[in-house]
Amino acid sequence: MSESKKLHLTAFMRPVSLHTGAWRYPGSYPDANFSLAHIVSFIKKLEDAKFDAFFMADHLAVLNMPVEALRRSHTVTSFEPFTLLSALSVVTEKIGLAATASTTYDEPYHIARRFASLDHLSNGRAAWNIVTTGNPESAKNFGLDEHVEHSERYKRAREFYDVVTGLWDSFADDAFIRDQESGIFMDPEKMHVLNHKGDDLKVKGPLNIARPVQGWPVIVQAGQSEPGRQLAAETAEVVFCSPRDLVAAKALYADIKGRVVAAGRDRNQLKILPAAFIVIGDTVEEAKAKRLHLDSLVHYDSAIASLSVSLGTDASEFDPDGPLPTDLPPTNASHTSRAGVVKLAEDEKLTVRQLAGRLGGYSGLAFVGTPESIADEMGIWLSEEAADGFTVAFPFLPQGLDDVTQRLVPELQRRGIFRQDYEGTTLREHLGLPRPRNQFFP
Amino acid sequence: MSESKKLHLTAFMRPVSLHTGAWRYPGSYPDANFSLAHIVSFIKKLEDAKFDAFFMADHLAVLNMPVEALRRSHTVTSFEPFTLLSALSVVTEKIGLAATASTTYDEPYHIARRFASLDHLSNGRAAWNIVTTGNPESAKNFGLDEHVEHSERYKRAREFYDVVTGLWDSFADDAFIRDQESGIFMDPEKMHVLNHKGDDLKVKGPLNIARPVQGWPVIVQAGQSEPGRQLAAETAEVVFCSPRDLVAAKALYADIKGRVVAAGRDRNQLKILPAAFIVIGDTVEEAKAKRLHLDSLVHYDSAIASLSVSLGTDASEFDPDGPLPTDLPPTNASHTSRAGVVKLAEDEKLTVRQLAGRLGGYSGLAFVGTPESIADEMGIWLSEEAADGFTVAFPFLPQGLDDVTQRLVPELQRRGIFRQDYEGTTLREHLGLPRPRNQFFP
Ligand SMILES: Cc1cc2nc3c(=O)[nH]c(=O)nc-3n(C[C@H](O)[C@H](O)[C@H](O)COP(=O)(O)O)c2cc1C
Ligand SMILES: Cc1cc2nc3c(=O)[nH]c(=O)nc-3n(C[C@H](O)[C@H](O)[C@H](O)COP(=O)(O)O)c2cc1C
Repeated sequence: MSESKKLHLTAFMRPVSLHTGAWRYPGSYPDANFSLAHIVSFIKKLEDAKFDAFFMADHLAVLNMPVEALRRSHTVTSFEPFTLLSALSVVTEKIGLAATASTTYDEPYHIARRFASLDHLSNGRAAWNIVTTGNPESAKNFGLDEHVEHSERYKRAREFYDVVTGLWDSFADDAFIRDQESGIFMDPEKMHVLNHKGDDLKVKGPLNIARPVQGWPVIVQAGQSEPGRQLAAETAEVVFCSPRDLVAAKALYADIKGRVVAAGRDRNQLKILPAAFIVIGDTVEEAKAKRLHLDSLVHYDSAIASLSVSLGTDASEFDPDGPLPTDLPPTNASHTSRAGVVKLAEDEKLTVRQLAGRLGGYSGLAFVGTPESIADEMGIWLSEEAADGFTVAFPFLPQGLDDVTQRLVPELQRRGIFRQDYEGTTLREHLGLPRPRNQFFP
Repeated sequence: MSESKKLHLTAFMRPVSLHTGAWRYPGSYPDANFSLAHIVSFIKKLEDAKFDAFFMADHLAVLNMPVEALRRSHTVTSFEPFTLLSALSVVTEKIGLAATASTTYDEPYHIARRFASLDHLSNGRAAWNIVTTGNPESAKNFGLDEHVEHSERYKRAREFYDVVTGLWDSFADDAFIRDQESGIFMDPEKMHVLNHKGDDLKVKGPLNIARPVQGWPVIVQAGQSEPGRQLAAETAEVVFCSPRDLVAAKALYADIKGRVVAAGRDRNQLKILPAAFIVIGDTVEEAKAKRLHLDSLVHYDSAIASLSVSLGTDASEFDPDGPLPTDLPPTNASHTSRAGVVKLAEDEKLTVRQLAGRLGGYSGLAFVGTPESIADEMGIWLSEEAADGFTVAFPFLPQGLDDVTQRLVPELQRRGIFRQDYEGTTLREHLGLPRPRNQFFP
């Protein structure tokens, strides 16, 4: 029998849970955003469960939300990713460490250097989630009045990637000789001066740090648009995405893998990991009830604001404990968005209050069920080429994380679709990705 | 008897030792630049010895040096400061963590955020060495052809400081309520939007991180020029400097403290810590011999290049093992620099080779002697108001560091001029500095 395909799992942390009601869930730690001790306990559990990586999502502004939502959200402030992941590198040995960094509002020399440093500190476990920064509020924190335009952001991102990878290759792997006897520390012939001059960036180099342990840290991309997918196809080794369901995921998977091949790359050298919110119970009904309880912890004032945005109409007039009215007023806002919400309310028979909690909490792809039912679903996604694994969002912590590491992971392992132990010591080894050659010293 | 004045000590690490021959010294670790384990062992010893802080100097380019020097220098590449210090914060509890960050080639939002994050991770131990970046090579790594002009750099630095400290004050200390019952996480009335619009910077805010544990991380400044001193007087709480000798140090001390008072500040709220290279022996002669040995490990090719620069003439023609010729050809280069070198050669009766090794190794202020003789000197500097302590450069590691922590520090403690234990848990407490009030929520 050929070795079966296996899932890759990364933990999606923003700052701790993505769900805006999570900090109120019984047993959760409301202060976890600034408690290194809690985050250390989370990552150790993830490493024990052999997760590929711990991923810290990030934004360059307080997220733009109505004041009622802001008042109730724990997602506003937390540690900055480079500093946090560097600290976590010391208390872990194997798990990958993925940080988000912007190509629009930072400099390639800094980004190249910090990821290289994290890769050295962690002995080869760093990954860079390349984002062009979606949140327009960020621009105002970096000297601009308006967000940089979308296509311009992606154009710069592509060039930025060339510069960063070029800087990582500043030194041959064997440039540092360190012979105390002869006094030769480094061979200057094995140092490359990049001298990049492009449309958006001008960077001389060399980078003042040795080549990363992994050659290059793993490249992650999470853009969903046409240029986002194209950038991924040309550069990424991992794609984070958020397809609605299996059908959408298969189409996205085929599209991205096709682009990878068209770009002349090996399709196995890019792993597609949709974001999945995982809620586990002893029965499917119990899991659903947990989720409803969690959603109910999103305060109605902020939940209803989210529902109103999705419906394109003021939902605060509706009876909270009745069904969604069938006679919604016409809207100029997104019809796809409204249609999705109407379908969700019908499918799950949600009241207005429950629907609002869902949209104000976390409304992306979710697996809600028992370890067995979720392992079934994940197996289907894997075998039907909808995913190479998942970017797992925990509903609440620590319990929602413990449910995944102690109940779901063993079930996946029993089925042979998740590793029993790490394949090596670097993130590239966990992901089955080759170490890139140095383009200047091959 | 009133409580006597005490010294403050910070460790000056660049990347490990500043001396370019240090990696060849018997017993040293040639690979320490990328060995977290070695650096961890260093900082733990410094913490056991109750050092105020561990300071990571930093540059934004491979230092501009002749290829012969580059080949032999271990100072070229190491970890990046934010990532390194964050990792070190996890393995230490009390010692301060000072990182260098540039106001010329970085963004205030990033700098404010990373220091705030390091301060949270370390429970109040972060310090920011504000530099305007002296190395002109840096400009070329950040899109420019020429280094930003000196006065423009300092003008931006002053404004940059206002923005960073303003961003640190984005949230009142009690903004985060985290009441699970009522669902109120944060009080938006305790969040300040900076809306800074100045000559060089435009930054909206708020910062997406809670106020640092120390209110503001400690501000360090190391500029030596007129605008450098003025910036220090207006903003700094610690000054790193490099006076030649006691006389120069007293003048500098008086000048800076005078400016502090003129700026309306308390003169005790700025500590002046000259950089001092410390070589310890059982006798003064032994210490001097160690230093000569160390200097001899700087390869002649690179040492002689340094000597030539300092003399403003080609020194490779001179007899390496003879004295410095008295009939030096006239020079257009700095006469002060040449005069200093000539005096040094005379005072210490150095051959050309020894002189070259000194200049190619480390030529700043040095205390070379026994623990007792150095403690005498340091006591004089403290009582004569030449220094509030020192930024200690180790000649080689680990031995040169062990000599300081195991021999000099106990001697200073015996004399009552260095602490027996930390005064508190934050760097501000070690330095006797107040926690700044929040300017928007006083
Ligand atoms: C799983 C996942 C994680 C993401 N993490 C981040 C993040 O940390 N920071 C960020 O600015 N955007 C993040 N994004 C958003 C994307 O980078 C991108 O901005 C968004 O999908 C819009 O895509 P587009 O700009 O290609 O249209 C994430 C998206 C997904 C699906
Ligand atoms: C002890 C000490 C440490 C310093 N550390 C750094 C450093 O880490 N990075 C840097 O760019 N400059 C460093 N400098 C240089 C100063 O920041 C400054 O650029 C230099 O003294 C020239 O001063 P000026 O620009 O005011 O003329 C240091 C200086 C001293 C005395």
